[in-house]
Amino acid sequence: MGEGRSLGEVGVISILRSRDLLYICSLTSGTQERVARANWPSRGETETGMSRLALSDTDKQARDWFVDTCESLGCEVTIDEMGNTFAVRPGLKDGPPTFAGSHLDTQPTGGRYDGILGVTAAVEMLRVLNDNWIETTYPVGVVNWTNEEGARFPISMVASGVWAGEIPLATAHNLQEVGGGTATMKSELQRIGYLGSKPATHKDIPMAAHFELHIEQGPILEAEHRKVGVVKGVQAYRWFTVTVSGRDCHTGTTSFAHRADAMLAASRMIVFSHRAASARGALASTGILTLKPGSTNTVPGLVKFSLDIRAPKDETVQEVEDACKQAFMNIANGINVAGLLEGGTESDRHCTVEWKTDSVSPAINFHHDCIQCVKDASEDLFAEKTENLTKIMVSGAGHDSVYTSKRVPTSMIFVPCRDGVSHNPAEYSTPEDCAIGAQVLMGAVLHYDRLRAEKGK
Amino acid sequence: MGEGRSLGEVGVISILRSRDLLYICSLTSGTQERVARANWPSRGETETGMSRLALSDTDKQARDWFVDTCESLGCEVTIDEMGNTFAVRPGLKDGPPTFAGSHLDTQPTGGRYDGILGVTAAVEMLRVLNDNWIETTYPVGVVNWTNEEGARFPISMVASGVWAGEIPLATAHNLQEVGGGTATMKSELQRIGYLGSKPATHKDIPMAAHFELHIEQGPILEAEHRKVGVVKGVQAYRWFTVTVSGRDCHTGTTSFAHRADAMLAASRMIVFSHRAASARGALASTGILTLKPGSTNTVPGLVKFSLDIRAPKDETVQEVEDACKQAFMNIANGINVAGLLEGGTESDRHCTVEWKTDSVSPAINFHHDCIQCVKDASEDLFAEKTENLTKIMVSGAGHDSVYTSKRVPTSMIFVPCRDGVSHNPAEYSTPEDCAIGAQVLMGAVLHYDRLRAEKGK
Repeated sequence: MGEGRSLGEVGVISILRSRDLLYICSLTSGTQERVARANWPSRGETETGMSRLALSDTDKQARDWFVDTCESLGCEVTIDEMGNTFAVRPGLKDGPPTFAGSHLDTQPTGGRYDGILGVTAAVEMLRVLNDNWIETTYPVGVVNWTNEEGARFPISMVASGVWAGEIPLATAHNLQEVGGGTATMKSELQRIGYLGSKPATHKDIPMAAHFELHIEQGPILEAEHRKVGVVKGVQAYRWFTVTVSGRDCHTGTTSFAHRADAMLAASRMIVFSHRAASARGALASTGILTLKPGSTNTVPGLVKFSLDIRAPKDETVQEVEDACKQAFMNIANGINVAGLLEGGTESDRHCTVEWKTDSVSPAINFHHDCIQCVKDASEDLFAEKTENLTKIMVSGAGHDSVYTSKRVPTSMIFVPCRDGVSHNPAEYSTPEDCAIGAQVLMGAVLHYDRLRAEKGK
Repeated sequence: MGEGRSLGEVGVISILRSRDLLYICSLTSGTQERVARANWPSRGETETGMSRLALSDTDKQARDWFVDTCESLGCEVTIDEMGNTFAVRPGLKDGPPTFAGSHLDTQPTGGRYDGILGVTAAVEMLRVLNDNWIETTYPVGVVNWTNEEGARFPISMVASGVWAGEIPLATAHNLQEVGGGTATMKSELQRIGYLGSKPATHKDIPMAAHFELHIEQGPILEAEHRKVGVVKGVQAYRWFTVTVSGRDCHTGTTSFAHRADAMLAASRMIVFSHRAASARGALASTGILTLKPGSTNTVPGLVKFSLDIRAPKDETVQEVEDACKQAFMNIANGINVAGLLEGGTESDRHCTVEWKTDSVSPAINFHHDCIQCVKDASEDLFAEKTENLTKIMVSGAGHDSVYTSKRVPTSMIFVPCRDGVSHNPAEYSTPEDCAIGAQVLMGAVLHYDRLRAEKGK
């Protein structure tokens, strides 16, 4: 740590407390306004939202802003073959930078916080460090990851996945845009001038750690009146399509005793899945359901529904899956599972049930050191109120931090968002909450830098 | 009753038993073959089915066959303004004819029995009466009703409805064909030459009674190994659209405690509706369900589903409706109804539920005399086996007999159909079951004629 410019006694945090909390607040929301206004075509009630698909013209505008701003703040900017953009502010010593970052792309009708907050807050961190003449021991960086949403090119977090060596570059480059267009990620990177020359790999672009500020995208922090989620990992999840086959028949002419009602069986299964997940502290959800033939006076012979099972631990997801598989088979066969057939009519005709696994995503555990840095940064801000204002939690959704965590120490910071709404123009976090998140982000990065300095690496 | 040609001691039934059972059998299936082959374009596995939309060219062919055949059998044929076609075989006395009949139109991909069996069996009745030199006291008739299916012109049983004075002629005439065509019932009646001049009303075309043979369209007779359903009426039914509104949210980021999951609530409601109907000997079915927004990782905020409630009595339908209305509201509000929320997670967010009534059809009770005639005709055929081989039942579906019953004594005869399948090319009743139905139909008509003779009217 360099003398006279150390973070110790001077106390970045106390500086922020006294002056820069409001400063960050206004700058953060100001930055968002700038980025948002430039790119969202105003149309009534959705003018608060954002439509910035990855590698579109508006994404190029936001990227240009990001590069210009970071360069004006004294950073060296590197763009890799995936368009991932890394801005590095030098430290007193050389070494892999400690990164903060997220993504600037959005869903087709998204909000102005998901991803964007993590990048703009990281940029504000650069400003605050500069304005306060703070030098870190090691370099710090800000990263904008490409196509996190997977909305235009249909693999989520694809570019951090390539960087982490988990997704082949060719797979990513050849991804075609959804909706029937012929553009690929590579052709669009080229078109907007963001096909960098640097190999998109952690080997060529090393990081010491990755911190990501994000809106929670859920209602928990708001409901519990907490300000900061200290994210210790990402839930495991598995996606299934369950197909229940019965027999079409006339609703008026077929007694209950002779039906194989796929919709009734599916309803019982959905109710059961909720119980099985509740009993194990897991989640189970059905977001898609289709049936055939689909007329008021025909009992459906075929129902397909999605089942999304999540839990912090892989074993728990497996347990819920096992319980559902057993119970769904019994329900299809007319066996009274968990009292669900109680009071119903037994039938001599049964359904069959089939499972297809659509997606498996194992649990991610973030790095102890990074989690501790986020806790420490919260403690710096909240002091004796820390216990009430923070929550140790797992992320329910995937983020670029999932991939960085496979290569480098990682953690995330969540801030509340109104009603838990996300991927929607109504997405909203207060300027105050954004500022708190930005301050904890910076604090975590600085704590990590100090930790490295103490460890001497 | 005319001497020497009375039905009494000679015994039509015994003639049929000894000789004409097989005769009707072969003629019935033969007639069906003739009608079916003329009109169904052969295409692989569906070549057993029938596609004869009302007032199409193929319907004209079938109508021509019907008129020609009935005339060749000595009937006078009347066509009314709705194309309803009435063939009357004179009796010994004048008076309104006792009618047997049904319809020759089908669903777009229908079977060869629904409706058709009732007409062809009635035509066979004419043959058998002629072949056996039988004269009835009063005239007997055969009727082919127009557009019973409501498949081409979208009101079911529309032409018997006009005849009964329940549907205005203009409404029926102006019905436009489904699928965007400009043809109306009137223009198509004109085009195929079946726009009769006779007013389509029971006042101008009186009936003494109406008997209709029909396949059951359900699995009950087959499952219970019975041969004849003595139909005492038609179930009441009401159709509803139930809308459950919750809140879209991310499946991964939203704990159960903060969800308003419209799909989970709808599933509980569907399970409840089955119980409520089971407890009251009623039926409840959901044949349509749609949800929004419809992605695996979004908890649906909106679910709409159809609810079809049926029971022999109107009061029972009302009871099930009331029970469901109360329970659905409670389920939406997170109250543990009938143990359905047991083992689930309580939530601080609730759903709302709205009901829309789409259709109300009160219970129909057929006429005691006609029901008795069907019973007697079955008894003639089955003797000591009658109790095992017949079933007093209500029709789950609507038929032209619903409308005739509003003006004249009416009953129906059901015969088993394989697996209860109908409105489908796989629809099938054995030649033996068709013949039994035809024989009971004729028997019922003759019993009714005898009853009228005894009563002298």
